[in-house]
Amino acid sequence: MSQPLFERHRALLDRALQAIAERGYWSPFPESPKAYGEQMPAFGKAAFDAFLGKPFPMTLPGTVGKVGPETSPYGLELGITYPGVDLDPLFAAISEAEVSWRKAGPEAWIGVSLEILTRINKRSFEMAYAVMHTSGQAFVMAFQAGCPHAQDRALEAITYAYDEMRRIPSSALWEKPQGKNEPLRMEKRFRIVPRGISLVIGCNTFPTWNAYPGMFASLATGNAVIVKPHPNAILPLAITVEIAREVLTEAGFDPNVVTLVAHAAGDDTAQKLALRPEVKLIDFTGSTANGEWLEKNARQAQVYTEKAGVNQIVVDSADDFKNVARNVAFSLALYTGQMCTAPQNVYVPKSGIDAADGHLSFDQVAQGLAEAVQKLVSDPARAVEILGAVVNDSVTQRIDAARGLGPVVLDSQAISHAQFPNARIRTPLIVKLDARDDAKYLKEWFGPIAFVIATEDTIQSLDIARRAVRSHGALTLSLYSKDPKVIDQAIEVAEDAGVALSINLTGGVFVNQSAAFSDYHGTGANPAANAALTDAAFVASRFRVVQHRMHV
Amino acid sequence: MSQPLFERHRALLDRALQAIAERGYWSPFPESPKAYGEQMPAFGKAAFDAFLGKPFPMTLPGTVGKVGPETSPYGLELGITYPGVDLDPLFAAISEAEVSWRKAGPEAWIGVSLEILTRINKRSFEMAYAVMHTSGQAFVMAFQAGCPHAQDRALEAITYAYDEMRRIPSSALWEKPQGKNEPLRMEKRFRIVPRGISLVIGCNTFPTWNAYPGMFASLATGNAVIVKPHPNAILPLAITVEIAREVLTEAGFDPNVVTLVAHAAGDDTAQKLALRPEVKLIDFTGSTANGEWLEKNARQAQVYTEKAGVNQIVVDSADDFKNVARNVAFSLALYTGQMCTAPQNVYVPKSGIDAADGHLSFDQVAQGLAEAVQKLVSDPARAVEILGAVVNDSVTQRIDAARGLGPVVLDSQAISHAQFPNARIRTPLIVKLDARDDAKYLKEWFGPIAFVIATEDTIQSLDIARRAVRSHGALTLSLYSKDPKVIDQAIEVAEDAGVALSINLTGGVFVNQSAAFSDYHGTGANPAANAALTDAAFVASRFRVVQHRMHV
Repeated sequence: MSQPLFERHRALLDRALQAIAERGYWSPFPESPKAYGEQMPAFGKAAFDAFLGKPFPMTLPGTVGKVGPETSPYGLELGITYPGVDLDPLFAAISEAEVSWRKAGPEAWIGVSLEILTRINKRSFEMAYAVMHTSGQAFVMAFQAGCPHAQDRALEAITYAYDEMRRIPSSALWEKPQGKNEPLRMEKRFRIVPRGISLVIGCNTFPTWNAYPGMFASLATGNAVIVKPHPNAILPLAITVEIAREVLTEAGFDPNVVTLVAHAAGDDTAQKLALRPEVKLIDFTGSTANGEWLEKNARQAQVYTEKAGVNQIVVDSADDFKNVARNVAFSLALYTGQMCTAPQNVYVPKSGIDAADGHLSFDQVAQGLAEAVQKLVSDPARAVEILGAVVNDSVTQRIDAARGLGPVVLDSQAISHAQFPNARIRTPLIVKLDARDDAKYLKEWFGPIAFVIATEDTIQSLDIARRAVRSHGALTLSLYSKDPKVIDQAIEVAEDAGVALSINLTGGVFVNQSAAFSDYHGTGANPAANAALTDAAFVASRFRVVQHRMHV
Repeated sequence: MSQPLFERHRALLDRALQAIAERGYWSPFPESPKAYGEQMPAFGKAAFDAFLGKPFPMTLPGTVGKVGPETSPYGLELGITYPGVDLDPLFAAISEAEVSWRKAGPEAWIGVSLEILTRINKRSFEMAYAVMHTSGQAFVMAFQAGCPHAQDRALEAITYAYDEMRRIPSSALWEKPQGKNEPLRMEKRFRIVPRGISLVIGCNTFPTWNAYPGMFASLATGNAVIVKPHPNAILPLAITVEIAREVLTEAGFDPNVVTLVAHAAGDDTAQKLALRPEVKLIDFTGSTANGEWLEKNARQAQVYTEKAGVNQIVVDSADDFKNVARNVAFSLALYTGQMCTAPQNVYVPKSGIDAADGHLSFDQVAQGLAEAVQKLVSDPARAVEILGAVVNDSVTQRIDAARGLGPVVLDSQAISHAQFPNARIRTPLIVKLDARDDAKYLKEWFGPIAFVIATEDTIQSLDIARRAVRSHGALTLSLYSKDPKVIDQAIEVAEDAGVALSINLTGGVFVNQSAAFSDYHGTGANPAANAALTDAAFVASRFRVVQHRMHV
């Protein structure tokens, strides 16, 4: 029944297969809102508005009561509630839904996954508002990161899944010579079977971007998927799940192949779900404590985690320091430093650096960064479109705590938003520290908090960076240097410690940005993540091969 | 320096790549001893004899004292000792050895691995004696399973590793259009890096066959490998490691990329090794208790385990029951039932079965199996070549314990070996049980112990089989039936529970046999093993990709 969906999206899949082989630039879902047609912004806004103040239209097995609403970081009253579910009847319903889905096979799994994805793409505007008002991302970022970029990552996961599955033959003739006698002949059939139920645990800041790779990797390999959104970022994943259920139904499958478990903040729903014996795969993005709890306790499942880390910039020397400062400032300010890839620690030799326009002292470097940030956020109307809003109060509390760590080079300020007077908006804080203050800077200070750290020299900077990646994890490392030897050393540190390195970003690419089909997000080689998005290792254990053989 | 080795073995690798894509019959290393030339048996015997009564010629860092000797199940005095090692200096030496090995890259890793493997193949005769006198396998089996078949599995692992690594481009040009402006252009380089140190924990019964896949999968992906043999099966892996060290040295690498940690039975060396933070991969074959300990405690490592299971045969009906009995009898007798794939539980409807030659009662079926086994082992000279020897006393004790479980259909007997008067040789025990006796038969009775179990009907047989696989694990399931509907039901049970199924084996293929490049050994979908030998999932997490990017 579903092979028509596979055929419908075959050209897209073929192009995606080429892209994962090359890992150059390719983005199937346009990131420019303008590419979606003139009426779409208004349609999307209307669709988002239609959700407000009502129960979300979704019927789930085992529904008991209501969950929600979320709190918008912009102060908008959302007033949306979601069905709460009782886990026993939910799992019973999933167990029934799995029967035909398990047997449908790779082309059905891939076809349905691609159809879901292309429908999600068509609803990118309403999704962008949903992401904006749950994560606090500014609209354009919510649109790009939450929609086309997240969809690109989903397609990437589907494509790797297909690429692994297609290489397993469905059958083989095994013919073993027996000298002068007739050969032994057997027919062997190899069936791809899913692992079981896949649990996807979403996060507040990137509800779609971080959930889609695991969700679609699991769905595309025949698993049923339970999506457990963060209690404050339910809407984007509720829309996603509802689209999935609609496509499944149309394709002749039970919609309970994909379900949503919304729950209230602070309860133990995530733990209960994670320990269910039926759950065989877990994808998690969030705190180190929760990720490690899952790794330790959810022993029945394969657990993929993205946890906290300490992202770092090593400043050694520069051609044009103004461009360095401009680029770094944008990375610190973008979405208020709430990206898992945002830099935190900036290491600068205490003797300063050589730049094309002469020697700059340590303080001049720190001051230059502060000025670049200040300039970027000086116009409130422009600033709010870069900063977005602070996702929750613990970030503002963390800013307060960080102020006392050392001399403040640039203080964090509240900015008001013309359209949303209650929006919680803050600019970056920059604090000066010394290399010896590692108890302060060798942990994640999630939010718009950066440290400019005085080191003996670049060798010490790289050494600290290496140790930090190894012991605390990191998703990004960035280097500024004119010296090819230092560049080689930094590459060696990155490959040794296992972190992606960006070198001399001074233009329109930022260290926080990770492009699907090209950049591996996370390496799986340091404590910040035990897997990369997306590669073969991310998908290959989501299914198994079961064979049977008989003589022919 | 090592690319010449890659080129030397390129044709073999290319053919192996074809084989993993097809999974039909292919065996690069001849299983017939005759294929190795006339002098090889004598050379091999002499080489084996030369090891006896001496310290094994291997120099390892951190050597302190001696370990050994092993006890031959045939009673031969081996008298070989091995260097014992102190772990701290050993890990320090490995840490140095890793530096250049990590950087050498996939072609060097693959080339060195293939060179090691082809040299091991040339030494198959001495290796066969080493396997025989540690595991107790009869010589021909020790030769086939311990040498060419184990080498095939090793090549399979190397090939999957290469197949995954070759699909990662070493670099990419990323060129993102910017409307009317110049595109953003970056060069990205993708470096494959190993996970760290790989620990391979060998077993007593198949020291090479079970250790090689993990060992070569890890080595071929750039990891350093510590081989920890079972205290009673050191020699086969000592020879293996010595060959690896010789090839590494010749190729310009530090031999400590591959090391051996022999130790005395009952000490805590395995646990100490498994908990070292440097160990990032562990491959284990052995008991469920030890496997689960590793999964639970070695949290810093990716752990691949093959543990105990309950292998089962469902007898529903037969065309020619004599052929069924002959085939099953061989499976029960081969290596004294000490294969992880050997059947244990035979389910037969209590009302008997339809066979081409008429209806057979339950007791006639049980009796027919007993007679077939008895016939197979009636001539001691022939019997010892099938049975081999009992690996250790716990197996003979288990036979004694199993005798009391129910009516004995065929008792286990001691057989004497003409050449080795002290050999510990036993024939299979067959005990009758009822379906209700699940407390007795739903656990692994490792050794030559089989239960013929009376069930209500085949539906119950399949139901028990499904539950047994799910809760206790299994590597094999076998069905005898003339009924296409029953065959379909069994396929469904196998795919649902996640176990490989053999259907109507009555000729020269036995359920215990698993052919590299064709049969997946273990599915990773039931508790007997958390991975299959060998597929993409077995290799893809043994390396990571670290990228760096810069503008061009």
